[in-house]
Amino acid sequence: MDMPINSQDKETLTTLDKIERARQARRNKFYLRDEHITLSHGSGGKATHNLIEGIFAPAFSNPLLDRLDDAAVFTPAPDHESVRMAFTTDTYVVNPLFFPGGDIGRLAVHGTINDLAVAGAQPLYLSAGFVLEEGFPIAHLRRIVESMAAAAREASVAIVTGDTKVVQRGKADGVFINTAGVGVVRSKRTIGQDQLRPGDKILLSGPIGDHGIAIMLARDMLDLECEICSDSAPLHTLVADLLKVAGDGVHSMKDPTRGGVATALNEMAMTSEVAILLDESAIPVRPEVRGACEILGLDPLTIANEGKLLAIVAPEVADRALAAMHAHPQGKDAAIIGTVQATPASMVFLRTEIGGTRVLDMLVGDPLPRIC
Amino acid sequence: MDMPINSQDKETLTTLDKIERARQARRNKFYLRDEHITLSHGSGGKATHNLIEGIFAPAFSNPLLDRLDDAAVFTPAPDHESVRMAFTTDTYVVNPLFFPGGDIGRLAVHGTINDLAVAGAQPLYLSAGFVLEEGFPIAHLRRIVESMAAAAREASVAIVTGDTKVVQRGKADGVFINTAGVGVVRSKRTIGQDQLRPGDKILLSGPIGDHGIAIMLARDMLDLECEICSDSAPLHTLVADLLKVAGDGVHSMKDPTRGGVATALNEMAMTSEVAILLDESAIPVRPEVRGACEILGLDPLTIANEGKLLAIVAPEVADRALAAMHAHPQGKDAAIIGTVQATPASMVFLRTEIGGTRVLDMLVGDPLPRIC
Repeated sequence: MDMPINSQDKETLTTLDKIERARQARRNKFYLRDEHITLSHGSGGKATHNLIEGIFAPAFSNPLLDRLDDAAVFTPAPDHESVRMAFTTDTYVVNPLFFPGGDIGRLAVHGTINDLAVAGAQPLYLSAGFVLEEGFPIAHLRRIVESMAAAAREASVAIVTGDTKVVQRGKADGVFINTAGVGVVRSKRTIGQDQLRPGDKILLSGPIGDHGIAIMLARDMLDLECEICSDSAPLHTLVADLLKVAGDGVHSMKDPTRGGVATALNEMAMTSEVAILLDESAIPVRPEVRGACEILGLDPLTIANEGKLLAIVAPEVADRALAAMHAHPQGKDAAIIGTVQATPASMVFLRTEIGGTRVLDMLVGDPLPRIC
Repeated sequence: MDMPINSQDKETLTTLDKIERARQARRNKFYLRDEHITLSHGSGGKATHNLIEGIFAPAFSNPLLDRLDDAAVFTPAPDHESVRMAFTTDTYVVNPLFFPGGDIGRLAVHGTINDLAVAGAQPLYLSAGFVLEEGFPIAHLRRIVESMAAAAREASVAIVTGDTKVVQRGKADGVFINTAGVGVVRSKRTIGQDQLRPGDKILLSGPIGDHGIAIMLARDMLDLECEICSDSAPLHTLVADLLKVAGDGVHSMKDPTRGGVATALNEMAMTSEVAILLDESAIPVRPEVRGACEILGLDPLTIANEGKLLAIVAPEVADRALAAMHAHPQGKDAAIIGTVQATPASMVFLRTEIGGTRVLDMLVGDPLPRIC
């Protein structure tokens, strides 16, 4: 039987050729050679893409999934073409459960809100699915759940349905939380990683790497005399302000979580068959995060963020898009960090601070497992 | 800020008083005394309700969640009142991953389809969130994913968005899968566990206990000379046939999974403030399941099913509802197993085969952890 994709999703169908070409390109680039799951398969980087292309994408293939955007956008009923809904999911396995700037509960609410927001959706409702390990302290669970509830309240979303499973001691790690989310999309334009066009400007809402480094510090992997907090935050009001001023000029958005900015932009460049040129000196990074990265040999561009927005916008709206970000508390350090070019297709380049230019690949390996 | 519950959800609001009374009743009946999570908290029975009432329900409280139905039903946008969507989630931690009649992948697709179906929704789209343990064989993952894809295809639903996380060896158990689902509700009438009325008939679509006993056999907990298969199956076409003939006469539906028929009916009786009287001799149970239950000291009424439908319908439509079930392959052994009475409110009784009547409580403890 056919998949219930409404034929009314015309925008989706007109870009199917491009999506199909991008699928072929991904299949050529990503190939699953492993026989067992490794931590790298959860990195969000190359190995995750190998797993997606090797197993999930071919098995589940359908026009909505094939876009591989952060959320799927659909019309719920053929007789109501003007309503479009966004739908997304994420599971959170972060370790430790509590860290400076947040906890697994806040992260689970913010992360799924953000996947809806970058699809241009107003987040409405979340589900919450818990896997609990036998012996987990009820007091910790209560603290996490109250934190989720507060995060949802602050963001005006409601957790409307849920599920709880328990597994034996040693068969999980305290608590894992899945949240799925639905939202309503008001704009008619498709916002997605296949929408980048030569000339577009790359906007970043603030300094990168805070979440990843905060988690490392919480794991005592670094003995630094500073406290770096996770940037865990909901992005939907920032996105709403951006859409208000830049409208159809907003071509694509992503929250660069696992794999960081480098991975997010590589995914976009590949799917849109364009080149992205970044200006390293324009990319905001806190000095303490930069310092920690240097000590650990990490690149801030591949480190996870949980409250940062990448927006790719038409050049004519770039200045007012940046002004809208600057006017929002979460975007006060926003910057234009690069541009989109026609060629060489599917590649990301970094113009370094010392004047050279190097290829910026997506994350390979996993320096920080269980970051979210 | 207020929760984004559309004031247009009039039916929801008119039953708020009843929901509020049921909340009070649940709070009086269920109380969380434990300091640590035990396997019983995952049973779906009394301890799970203690956890829900002690932690989740008060923290997340909102009109959609407070109904505690298997799916939340909402209008996505105030200007599109006539579209109603259902949204649900479940995580699957079944052990073993492969068992007679199914595997964790099929279960994850069927279970979430069924939670949408019993809300009267046509299932449209699923999400899939995987937690993988380091070292898990890729070949097993492939088999599970292909099984999910086949189950989705068979049921005409599409898996449109997903997520994969990996945790270290010993921090999970092979694979856990969360699926959330969205569907569209065509009927205007609220179908829910608060809708039972005195005189209603209780219909059950077929023999109970198959899934639970199949899992026990797969765990080698019983050395029986028979193969009992899980009943894992999607219920949405059976529900559609039922709604076609019985329409607004269908007051409530549930798929009795964890905690079995006894727990599902107790939840309904409590929320609707009615009594339910069951006729034990009318309840279909396969002889081999009955035999296994006798050996193990289990009650088939508290054992999980994954492809059975409980429907509570108005007396005037009961016969044609039963006929519609009989005409469907999944309902050929359907039976009317009981009736709803006004008093004593919030209780379930079983008229036994030897002529006595006993109170039938929901599941206490957890004889079969990780059944789904």
